[in-house]
Amino acid sequence: MSDTDEVDVLLERVREGEVRLHKLDEHTDAATAATVRRRLLAAETGADLETVAAYGFDPEQAADANIENMLGGAQVPMGVVGPIELDTGGAAPPETYLPLATTEGALVASVNRGCAAIRAGGGATARVLKNAMTRAPVFRVADVGEAAEMAAWVREHVDELAAAAEATTSHGTLQEATPYVVGDSVFVRFAYDTKDAMGMNMATIATQEAAELLEAETPAELVALSGNLCTDKKPAAVNAVEGRGRTVSADVTLSRETVADVLKTTPEAIAEANTRKNLVGSAKAGSLGFNAHAANTVAAAFLATGQDIAQVVEGANAITTVDVRDDGATLYASLTIASLEVGTVGGGTKLPTQAEALDVVGVRGGGDPPGANADALAEVITTAALGGELSLLGALASSNLASAHEELGR
Amino acid sequence: MSDTDEVDVLLERVREGEVRLHKLDEHTDAATAATVRRRLLAAETGADLETVAAYGFDPEQAADANIENMLGGAQVPMGVVGPIELDTGGAAPPETYLPLATTEGALVASVNRGCAAIRAGGGATARVLKNAMTRAPVFRVADVGEAAEMAAWVREHVDELAAAAEATTSHGTLQEATPYVVGDSVFVRFAYDTKDAMGMNMATIATQEAAELLEAETPAELVALSGNLCTDKKPAAVNAVEGRGRTVSADVTLSRETVADVLKTTPEAIAEANTRKNLVGSAKAGSLGFNAHAANTVAAAFLATGQDIAQVVEGANAITTVDVRDDGATLYASLTIASLEVGTVGGGTKLPTQAEALDVVGVRGGGDPPGANADALAEVITTAALGGELSLLGALASSNLASAHEELGR
Amino acid sequence: MSDTDEVDVLLERVREGEVRLHKLDEHTDAATAATVRRRLLAAETGADLETVAAYGFDPEQAADANIENMLGGAQVPMGVVGPIELDTGGAAPPETYLPLATTEGALVASVNRGCAAIRAGGGATARVLKNAMTRAPVFRVADVGEAAEMAAWVREHVDELAAAAEATTSHGTLQEATPYVVGDSVFVRFAYDTKDAMGMNMATIATQEAAELLEAETPAELVALSGNLCTDKKPAAVNAVEGRGRTVSADVTLSRETVADVLKTTPEAIAEANTRKNLVGSAKAGSLGFNAHAANTVAAAFLATGQDIAQVVEGANAITTVDVRDDGATLYASLTIASLEVGTVGGGTKLPTQAEALDVVGVRGGGDPPGANADALAEVITTAALGGELSLLGALASSNLASAHEELGR
Amino acid sequence: MSDTDEVDVLLERVREGEVRLHKLDEHTDAATAATVRRRLLAAETGADLETVAAYGFDPEQAADANIENMLGGAQVPMGVVGPIELDTGGAAPPETYLPLATTEGALVASVNRGCAAIRAGGGATARVLKNAMTRAPVFRVADVGEAAEMAAWVREHVDELAAAAEATTSHGTLQEATPYVVGDSVFVRFAYDTKDAMGMNMATIATQEAAELLEAETPAELVALSGNLCTDKKPAAVNAVEGRGRTVSADVTLSRETVADVLKTTPEAIAEANTRKNLVGSAKAGSLGFNAHAANTVAAAFLATGQDIAQVVEGANAITTVDVRDDGATLYASLTIASLEVGTVGGGTKLPTQAEALDVVGVRGGGDPPGANADALAEVITTAALGGELSLLGALASSNLASAHEELGR
Repeated sequence: MSDTDEVDVLLERVREGEVRLHKLDEHTDAATAATVRRRLLAAETGADLETVAAYGFDPEQAADANIENMLGGAQVPMGVVGPIELDTGGAAPPETYLPLATTEGALVASVNRGCAAIRAGGGATARVLKNAMTRAPVFRVADVGEAAEMAAWVREHVDELAAAAEATTSHGTLQEATPYVVGDSVFVRFAYDTKDAMGMNMATIATQEAAELLEAETPAELVALSGNLCTDKKPAAVNAVEGRGRTVSADVTLSRETVADVLKTTPEAIAEANTRKNLVGSAKAGSLGFNAHAANTVAAAFLATGQDIAQVVEGANAITTVDVRDDGATLYASLTIASLEVGTVGGGTKLPTQAEALDVVGVRGGGDPPGANADALAEVITTAALGGELSLLGALASSNLASAHEELGR
Repeated sequence: MSDTDEVDVLLERVREGEVRLHKLDEHTDAATAATVRRRLLAAETGADLETVAAYGFDPEQAADANIENMLGGAQVPMGVVGPIELDTGGAAPPETYLPLATTEGALVASVNRGCAAIRAGGGATARVLKNAMTRAPVFRVADVGEAAEMAAWVREHVDELAAAAEATTSHGTLQEATPYVVGDSVFVRFAYDTKDAMGMNMATIATQEAAELLEAETPAELVALSGNLCTDKKPAAVNAVEGRGRTVSADVTLSRETVADVLKTTPEAIAEANTRKNLVGSAKAGSLGFNAHAANTVAAAFLATGQDIAQVVEGANAITTVDVRDDGATLYASLTIASLEVGTVGGGTKLPTQAEALDVVGVRGGGDPPGANADALAEVITTAALGGELSLLGALASSNLASAHEELGR
Repeated sequence: MSDTDEVDVLLERVREGEVRLHKLDEHTDAATAATVRRRLLAAETGADLETVAAYGFDPEQAADANIENMLGGAQVPMGVVGPIELDTGGAAPPETYLPLATTEGALVASVNRGCAAIRAGGGATARVLKNAMTRAPVFRVADVGEAAEMAAWVREHVDELAAAAEATTSHGTLQEATPYVVGDSVFVRFAYDTKDAMGMNMATIATQEAAELLEAETPAELVALSGNLCTDKKPAAVNAVEGRGRTVSADVTLSRETVADVLKTTPEAIAEANTRKNLVGSAKAGSLGFNAHAANTVAAAFLATGQDIAQVVEGANAITTVDVRDDGATLYASLTIASLEVGTVGGGTKLPTQAEALDVVGVRGGGDPPGANADALAEVITTAALGGELSLLGALASSNLASAHEELGR
Repeated sequence: MSDTDEVDVLLERVREGEVRLHKLDEHTDAATAATVRRRLLAAETGADLETVAAYGFDPEQAADANIENMLGGAQVPMGVVGPIELDTGGAAPPETYLPLATTEGALVASVNRGCAAIRAGGGATARVLKNAMTRAPVFRVADVGEAAEMAAWVREHVDELAAAAEATTSHGTLQEATPYVVGDSVFVRFAYDTKDAMGMNMATIATQEAAELLEAETPAELVALSGNLCTDKKPAAVNAVEGRGRTVSADVTLSRETVADVLKTTPEAIAEANTRKNLVGSAKAGSLGFNAHAANTVAAAFLATGQDIAQVVEGANAITTVDVRDDGATLYASLTIASLEVGTVGGGTKLPTQAEALDVVGVRGGGDPPGANADALAEVITTAALGGELSLLGALASSNLASAHEELGR
């Protein structure tokens, strides 16, 4: 049977209700299943899915690891910023490029301009300050008396919990297990070093084991393996305060001349914009993000390098500080992202365009030592985002946000 | 000169420092410029950018509207969920499909299962409750006396501010202009109906005009056209409380049988998981997101349909409620997203794979009446995300989060 | 029967279970009832309640309006700060004193030092920027379709809601009625100008009427007259963003010499302490209070002047800004309290020590025009709290917080 | 010289500017100084301060420890609730009374009704889950490289920091020292067990020593001994998540009959009110307080027992949960206060009315073992506040909040 015939036959069987759309993979290969779905949707909705069909990744692998009910691929333009100059104390190379995928005109140019300012300033300094992927199941207990006992048990048996959790993984290590009680609900926030993996799956599987130990050793009953104190993909103070994934800081000092030449404004104007907008404005907004647009860089880098883009939510928990120094001769600027969740193995990092982007940064796959690649990626993204902060603050300070968008952002 | 020759020449000129990487577009067409960049990065980093080169969109158009320093395209697998059954009181068709682009295995399957549950429940009800894209410049005044006067001026001259703002746009209308004072900083939050556009650019350009009027009529001086009370791409209570973009609710009632058949658990178990995790757990986490994983659906739909993925941050400001009714015979569930920023014109919606995805939903381009397409898209995404909530809560309630990931999420 | 005999008889009846402790007021006067309770507690707990018995207010009046199950009175030391120099554009006198009641050594001295700095700076400027006491009932509706209809009804019938609400009060006026939907819950935040009353009771009673109208005209059913979007006595972003009670700002400019002489430090040191502590530190803490200790002044003023001390919670929603100007020659400082809930009539303001304290400020009873007294009190408290901010920032900047406490705070 | 003469002479000297108001204590005893101040204010403001003069505490002691610029005393009516039945696993007696001082009519009655419900339910269970008074200084470092080093130093030298800190106190012990980095600011949150003291002064003095060690051993320079990550007297997620002072939970199970008899409603109605108001309403409000009015009970207990009333701010970080069980036969309710800062020694606890109130609870002075009294006080307050929650939820559920206020709250 020819491919076309097979598609026609399957299409008919789906229409007849014999095969369900999402079960097509059981009846044919992933590419053909996608073709059938596109044909069906084209017929039902009138949509021509020709470009969606022109994907460049291996459909079997994608269907196995990344997607169900596959139609094809979404394509997003990818640009690049750099060179990014940074001192990381070891993990990242001193100069690197970072691909960014986005549909927002002016973004890559803005970040790139900031990277030029950073280079002119002699490069940034960046550090991963904490590395802890978390998962926090919630348990039901009889009452607060039992809750107190369970919390005490957790504090006293972290080693046993670690042994149970770590039995499920060759890489991850349990760092902390912190109990939180609300009435008859007990949450335990497990924090792992997941090395070069973003680590959510690793943390989830490991926590499943630890939760079973807790159920065996205490009267607690597991209600949900995630109790939202993790906190994954929701804006949450626990992440902004305690971190999740990598906590990273980057900073740079620019001369007054660099601020004038590259950012077209003065240190004082940038500092005022930062204080009134990023600090006071965010304070008034009841925000957890005291920055200009860190999420823009984080999102574009996540998309380019195969990260989980829903975790841009946590990547926005960032604080930008700016300080005029030396009687105005220099401008100090820093960006600290509390919860940047990145990996260089697993998830979307194996897809071809994403793997190629990771190669541009020089961090594809497992690092040496383990974790070094994800550390480096986190530091590079944070430095690029610092560049984005400087550039947007500069643009705002020189009152040209709207005109910049007019020119570049149609 | 052949294409290859041209690339070689330009490559050499970049290496010589005669042409800067991001200025290549001034010396050649967008596709050739991208080729030169890929060649340069390949040489410098060892990265093979072959798949990045295999993009399917028009490079000139992308370079004009969406990206700078272009390398090519990022490709992300796209699946589809549906049919989604919903009553929107008009805007959306009663049954539709929604493409989702993601690299997170199990996500599309999970949302799709939830959509099946919704269908079994007779369909969801969804409504856009508010529609207001905001931009909030910050002004400097002399002191709190002047701040009070300026706030009063704004309250008394909303019509003039509207006239100034609306002169810049053929579609948008100013709905509100609310002043907020912090010492000698005055923020004015302008809220627009931007119809089928997501509207950030429209709101920014319109606000520029209104800000100029304010500078002309009061002693205030503009410090930054965005003062972070907007709030764009940062987690912020002002959005969670007052909304930004579309505020949308969707709900559904499922029978006990549907919960058992499709979600493999009971209404009581889902309700308990929702209360302990989404309500109490989020409360304890200091969260603005009281949901299971709404951002997952929002992110994947944003990526597939050409939205600004950094605005997933605001899309996570969502509350899921669940209620057991009729002595356990039914389960009521709702999802309310406070700040879902979507458009069906402009931005990334013109890119081919994204345009095709919008055609699947049936909402590409301007709606009739204007705004109807973006309303419908918002309602469809929220309903799909409600499906995702039901499915994940069901999975957690039947204790199989980890195993689901084990099977699907390598 | 002598008083002593009566006490003995009632004590016996309480012990016999014939009269319940909190029903004593039905059997005797308030003072005797309190005596019986003290006797009973003394016998049961060994506590000598002699000083509690030595209260100076009218027990009948207190039992009628302020307390149940009365034992007597709590006494807290009262000091005074001032003169406070301020320009309020009318409401408050240009110079006034403010009594503060507290048990925290060093607090009054600290605030008083700040007031001296403000005087040396030529006085503060203070303004009430908004005046809105809120109450937000929560209603149950059938689904999000009905929720959307109800929200629309509210927006279209504010005048009728105002008429219903205002029928219950001779002073209050309804300013806004804003609907918020979460699934099948609809909250309506009613905001009132309550003139010189703090206004919670007024707002509650008026809202009861408006809620009944809503129940009559829409399918909504009232679940709770307060749905926590008010928000009363809980830390909540809605108050920090939108205000509750009075929103007040005060600011002052100090010369470098005043900072040196009175605060023993420099403008730069105070600015750095404010930025790193009040802005960046609060940002990192996930705080709604970006100040040093505004709640201290608010609490002590509330206690002295008969306010509801549980509303200190909202009074802590305050932002302090500091700016070095004129090349270091001056220091600008402001304090903005988003939700300061004060009254000069009703509640605890009629108690004798509190009424006397209000007389010291010159704002006891209803103002002319109505609201002027509560406005003035709010401005005076905010200015004193600004003094407290300056003083504590100065103390921290000169590294002597601990030693100040060592000296004054045993 | 007679007392009256002395007052006249001092009054004249103050008027002449020879003696400043707040320096009067250097020229006479505390009582006479207060008399002079009252005379002066009476003359300047027309206020009669007769009742303020009728205080019952020792003026020298108050002037020494609690107040400066003393005028006299503020008096607040004190009532009592109880008996409170609770199982604390040891610290508190099984039955106790709690004095409450307030000016808000209906509050004591409401809490007392809740305590009756708790008694009818067989008593509450209460537990202190964590005990940690915190102080978090902020340090300046050169850049993020130095920040990372300092954070590492802190993690590796907790023992030395503890030795330095504990050298200043005979009671307190350092439990944790957690570094947080934001750019070139490093915050270290020191957490102490301060036994029966609320512990702010103890923590501040101990942290001063630890900060000096940090300055000696690292390049860090102290900017402010409190960097707002403590967080004291500001609403802050760090306290709501991690706790400050005591973290306490109390819960109770009530029969359907008790709910009907005492609270005049049904378990279902209370559960619905709690979910829509305390959980969903607070979620929508961007709140850190998911309760009905815990701050009311906390404030009134703090005032009666000599606590720092500005810390009511933290005491409002509380979550109430309610659950209908056994097919409606019982109602489970819990209240968890994350950051309840109480002491039974020091501060205002030595003042006579407050000491008497502590005697009523049976917890005055140091406990055996140390900390037991403050634990017990925390558990009793939390249980009473749970009673307040039940009572107000019951009142709301039976739709009589406004009428309750109408009757009791004039």
